[in-house]
Amino acid sequence: MPVEDSRDTASSETREAMMQATYRALQEHGYADLTIQKIGDEFSKSKSLVYHHYDGKDELLLDFLSHLLEQFETDTIDDEGDAADVRLEAVLDHLLPEAAEDDHLDFLRIMVEIRAQAAHSPAYRDHFTESDRLFQDRFADLIRDGIDEGVFREVDADRVASFLLTAVNGAMGRRVTADDEVIPAARAELDEYLEARLLVDDG
Amino acid sequence: MPVEDSRDTASSETREAMMQATYRALQEHGYADLTIQKIGDEFSKSKSLVYHHYDGKDELLLDFLSHLLEQFETDTIDDEGDAADVRLEAVLDHLLPEAAEDDHLDFLRIMVEIRAQAAHSPAYRDHFTESDRLFQDRFADLIRDGIDEGVFREVDADRVASFLLTAVNGAMGRRVTADDEVIPAARAELDEYLEARLLVDDG
Repeated sequence: MPVEDSRDTASSETREAMMQATYRALQEHGYADLTIQKIGDEFSKSKSLVYHHYDGKDELLLDFLSHLLEQFETDTIDDEGDAADVRLEAVLDHLLPEAAEDDHLDFLRIMVEIRAQAAHSPAYRDHFTESDRLFQDRFADLIRDGIDEGVFREVDADRVASFLLTAVNGAMGRRVTADDEVIPAARAELDEYLEARLLVDDG
Repeated sequence: MPVEDSRDTASSETREAMMQATYRALQEHGYADLTIQKIGDEFSKSKSLVYHHYDGKDELLLDFLSHLLEQFETDTIDDEGDAADVRLEAVLDHLLPEAAEDDHLDFLRIMVEIRAQAAHSPAYRDHFTESDRLFQDRFADLIRDGIDEGVFREVDADRVASFLLTAVNGAMGRRVTADDEVIPAARAELDEYLEARLLVDDG
């Protein structure tokens, strides 16, 4: 017989509603000014449910990050039916779109702010170590597929994958903290890098 | 006759001491837990001097960032007596050292945390837009020198410079928020990129 822990087992509908409230509160207030009260204000159900499930804003935000990662693990951006070079371009188009929409920029701002907490907080650092590892492994698997298919050269797939993630993270970070024009510029040079380093010459 | 604004004209010695106190307080507490009181606690002179010169922690931190930028503008990492390819390697060695020392990591943690404020604060964003511009222009000047010297190809110097800054920022950010091993990996792939994209073939 499963034992219910009343603290941890919000119904999935309640948890989803709390995650959406967290996102709206982050959008509006940013990390520094966020409080669990402000998240409660965005919550459609009883505020006390939020306090019941989380001890403070960081506990809630760490669950919010886990929730995002669960969504990422089930996403289908990468269509494994295509050739690896086509798949890689599609993933980069998704991560570094030519013209980022407001929702995408809001999301990047939120992630840059939360990620910065990892500089001093081991719990946040553990999360981003895990999520970077997942992203990097997906890139590396895609690169190994391309090597097997003969469209990519015999590179160190993990190192190229790490560099792709570094460049993507760097471009996202600069976009929301400094430079409106950085994403298309980074994407163009990433394509130069991929062509010179990864793609097998056709001619 | 110059008009002295008692609020703004800390002696350079006093300002330097306040900047050092700010650095120590950031090292110890991080941005989120920083208060102007905690900066005062690190200050060797009268605490009231700090309150006299700054209205709050963000005003002080913005002056701290300006101070860092002034130091950067007079630094001499880049020895213009060398060939451009040697200069570029030396700058990258400095920014992405094989084994980062604790002081360097503390500095990176502080910068990642402060920079994240630019996601929601126009004053911080203005600073990082200016400082990114300065770094990027230095890279671009170096690349143009290399093109003139015949060691670099005829690339879009501004776009390559932007990409170098993006990759360096990305590696620094990942280093202090997720992955202890990312800097040597990023440096190795940056060298692959530079060799394929920038360096003129010798052979």
